[in-house]
Amino acid sequence: MSEVKLFGAWFSPFVRRVEMALNLKGVEYEYIEEDLKNKSPLFLEYNPITKLVPVLVHNGKPIFESSVIFEYIDETWEGPSILPKDPYERAMSRFWAKFVQDKCSEPLWKACWSAGEEREKAKKEVEEALKLLENEIEGKKFFGGDKIGVVDYVGTFIAFWIPILQDVVGFHILTKDKFPNIWKWGDELCNDSFVKKNLPEKEKVSFALKRAFETGNLY
Amino acid sequence: MSEVKLFGAWFSPFVRRVEMALNLKGVEYEYIEEDLKNKSPLFLEYNPITKLVPVLVHNGKPIFESSVIFEYIDETWEGPSILPKDPYERAMSRFWAKFVQDKCSEPLWKACWSAGEEREKAKKEVEEALKLLENEIEGKKFFGGDKIGVVDYVGTFIAFWIPILQDVVGFHILTKDKFPNIWKWGDELCNDSFVKKNLPEKEKVSFALKRAFETGNLY
Repeated sequence: MSEVKLFGAWFSPFVRRVEMALNLKGVEYEYIEEDLKNKSPLFLEYNPITKLVPVLVHNGKPIFESSVIFEYIDETWEGPSILPKDPYERAMSRFWAKFVQDKCSEPLWKACWSAGEEREKAKKEVEEALKLLENEIEGKKFFGGDKIGVVDYVGTFIAFWIPILQDVVGFHILTKDKFPNIWKWGDELCNDSFVKKNLPEKEKVSFALKRAFETGNLY
Repeated sequence: MSEVKLFGAWFSPFVRRVEMALNLKGVEYEYIEEDLKNKSPLFLEYNPITKLVPVLVHNGKPIFESSVIFEYIDETWEGPSILPKDPYERAMSRFWAKFVQDKCSEPLWKACWSAGEEREKAKKEVEEALKLLENEIEGKKFFGGDKIGVVDYVGTFIAFWIPILQDVVGFHILTKDKFPNIWKWGDELCNDSFVKKNLPEKEKVSFALKRAFETGNLY
């Protein structure tokens, strides 16, 4: 029998999306919560390169980077597919997943944690990207169409984590007024029973982010 | 018959690597040189999102982002495979391709074009990444083993373009002394007959970068 371990941190959007992929496929796995302040020797042995969670270990072999893990899970286990089967649709999904991660999630996160000129610059850039995303999701239930797909799983970062963080730091870029389609999609996504089951508790995340905001230390 | 067009810019490492993938598969395509100072309406119609080259158009449908195009080419056309067939090896290739792009090529490029404190910060970060890469390529001919693979194609950025840019700006991070394994690999890669045929002329790239360095405008 194959052995699957996942090293994670409960609040990490990257870890949660990998858990969604594993659970979608019905893969049994051992979850190991890693203390990011004090990483275990076993964890560092598996991932001496990025030293970041998530790390998926399959039959003793480690894989890192959530986007890479996603593709691996989809290729390795049977069950509902995470990426579309059609090569063109796969390409579009890969593009939008990368766009949501690199152009929306990370700059939003950065803008929330920064201040002054740096924050304004990040805000301007991310607003441009969000406009494109707003346009892309118009008239669709999910990025995957009627079914939740890879872009939606990656998108939980902006659908769930970012609104909490915005409230904590008191700085709002992704607002309902400016981006109604993204908010509608985000609400639908976070209320989907499967997604909801795989998200952390909102209050716990809010508490952790508040403490991080006050102490300047996320872990 | 399928119709394939590639919108590119002759000096772009991202475009050249897509051409390598198409040529490796033996795909016939029409190459359209795009004036990046004055982008054509057709180009902007195909890629209103990132507005960047390369854009691959297959049977009228556009695909952008070189990493996404790579996967599409590998899935769509027969011929030598670009990514390994084994899912674990595929995952590792995807990881290292992303690492070379995000942690080595882009910060090296940025460090060369910046100055002062910003440059020093970028230098420190990229040196850490290069040490990991130096270690990874030790004892191997290519990242793909004996055969050139996706990490190597992506790596042409640091094997070919970065050494030219370093000389132009007079600032060297990726040196033969500090990173002998990377240099050895880079020499081998750029002298491979297939890769060489798909690279631009060194003198032309050097001239274009010199002009860009003097005028502060790459295009």
